[in-house]
Amino acid sequence: MPLLETIQAYLEEQRARVEEELERLLPPAGEYPPSIHRAMRYSIFAGGKRLRPILCLESGKLFGGDERNLRRLGCALEMIHTYSLIHDDLPALDDDDLRRGMPTSHRQFGEATAILAGDALLTLAFETLAAPQSSQDEDRHPSDALPAAAAKDSDRGSGAEDSHLRVIHELARAIGTRGGMVAGQVVDLESTGKETDAVTLQFIHSAKTGAFIRAAVRSGAIAAEATEADIERVTGYGEKIGLAFQIADDLLDVLGSRQALGKAVGKDGNQQKATYPALHGVEQSQRIAAGLVREACEILEPYGSRALRLQEIAHFLLARRS
Amino acid sequence: MPLLETIQAYLEEQRARVEEELERLLPPAGEYPPSIHRAMRYSIFAGGKRLRPILCLESGKLFGGDERNLRRLGCALEMIHTYSLIHDDLPALDDDDLRRGMPTSHRQFGEATAILAGDALLTLAFETLAAPQSSQDEDRHPSDALPAAAAKDSDRGSGAEDSHLRVIHELARAIGTRGGMVAGQVVDLESTGKETDAVTLQFIHSAKTGAFIRAAVRSGAIAAEATEADIERVTGYGEKIGLAFQIADDLLDVLGSRQALGKAVGKDGNQQKATYPALHGVEQSQRIAAGLVREACEILEPYGSRALRLQEIAHFLLARRS
Repeated sequence: MPLLETIQAYLEEQRARVEEELERLLPPAGEYPPSIHRAMRYSIFAGGKRLRPILCLESGKLFGGDERNLRRLGCALEMIHTYSLIHDDLPALDDDDLRRGMPTSHRQFGEATAILAGDALLTLAFETLAAPQSSQDEDRHPSDALPAAAAKDSDRGSGAEDSHLRVIHELARAIGTRGGMVAGQVVDLESTGKETDAVTLQFIHSAKTGAFIRAAVRSGAIAAEATEADIERVTGYGEKIGLAFQIADDLLDVLGSRQALGKAVGKDGNQQKATYPALHGVEQSQRIAAGLVREACEILEPYGSRALRLQEIAHFLLARRS
Repeated sequence: MPLLETIQAYLEEQRARVEEELERLLPPAGEYPPSIHRAMRYSIFAGGKRLRPILCLESGKLFGGDERNLRRLGCALEMIHTYSLIHDDLPALDDDDLRRGMPTSHRQFGEATAILAGDALLTLAFETLAAPQSSQDEDRHPSDALPAAAAKDSDRGSGAEDSHLRVIHELARAIGTRGGMVAGQVVDLESTGKETDAVTLQFIHSAKTGAFIRAAVRSGAIAAEATEADIERVTGYGEKIGLAFQIADDLLDVLGSRQALGKAVGKDGNQQKATYPALHGVEQSQRIAAGLVREACEILEPYGSRALRLQEIAHFLLARRS
């Protein structure tokens, strides 16, 4: 297993760069009407690890994608992720008061603003995905140095247009009702307080978290115009780490401390939510997750050392403490 | 003024065709998980007039756009419109029990499902906008006869790709927080129960309803690859009828019957919501709306009889009784 310290420092550096880009893409807090922009920024800058953007970025870099484009795509992923957290926390859904140690959006701004802030972040994600490069460049702070690789994008042909549309389609499906994020949330809500079988649990994890992590990895490769064979390969990686990530989350809920998670620990268990530890026990769940990470890393072996970052991230997902 | 009966029959025919396409684009009610698909269909097929899709279609046809593509784009507009109605009706926002004479989504399915059904329709709209033609064709019922004009689309070049991305960007901006639909809803909520000045009222109307109607008209022209000058011209038309439409809505709320609207009449007045009649009086509001429709029609005069449908629709918006 690679050194955790090294990958943590790298992830921290990437996280900071994603946040710089998010800072540029989100409307200023003072822009009219300020209440909604404050609420969007509050949740976006609440201390996320930016794992989905970083997965997208590393997947795209594996196939020679332009870093700046990939980072912008990653920011759209983070907007979608944040929208889903805001809406999941609402009183009518999971009814959570805390998220990453801070009051949830509806506790901070009221339910109406929280609903609209989620809607607005989902919408801004698609606006970002479809934005022309030139208008985004105009929005940039003049002191921004453009990376040299950006030149590749400025004369993007119909291939790039095609891949833009394909990425939008891919992401929309991954967060929709046909095996996507909304489907997972629906089934999760409907199974709360009931006995959940292994098939249903697998569906919830795959739809609610897995599909979007898979799409994060795939969209990076698609944006980099990777071959279909390469896209398929990273899809396998994305599916395995997506499930491992969710099992690790379930385990953190059982084993972690309230401090590390910033939310009430054991809540899922109290609510009789479907989780891996509840169904398989803690040790067996740990074994399953470790096996998935190993398999995910093996899938990338044909890429040799170029895939090292993605392999390190897979290990990190399992080892993280929050 | 053109014969209302003629345009009504035409709108009815177009409405039916839009609904046929929506029937194909929405997941079947029985598809897993069924609760969300039932809720999406309940609100989508609740008897809307489909004015936004028809405006998009007629605008695109003016510039030689392919009817089938335009109708699919129109369906995405209708999904977005329906998402906005479901979320606006929620207890935390307008708290409405009835919409078009039927229980609102949260009254029918509960708040959690209503929030997710809105999210899912917004997401499905972008999925539809970015979908490749071929995969949509595969989803079609085999008995579907493809219109002859569809051939134009099958070999769409980079121009069509570009216009697809531009349409997505255009629509996302129109429903976002920078002068778009969410901004309008935020300011509307914040001004409820307060004295509202004319500038704020104008902003609410322009952002909450106007921006999206404008985008419906513009997106049709963009999808048809109209020239920038033509897009600008129909933009003027869209802005004027958007405002006229909202004033007519306000007037219906004051003057209409509960039966015709399918919701509580005078509700906006009771809640001290910002409306044109409240600020300018009924007669002056009627004069303003009629003036806007006249100006909208004049803008289209250079197109001669080709623009007749759009002109008739403008008149219809004012004369409608629900």
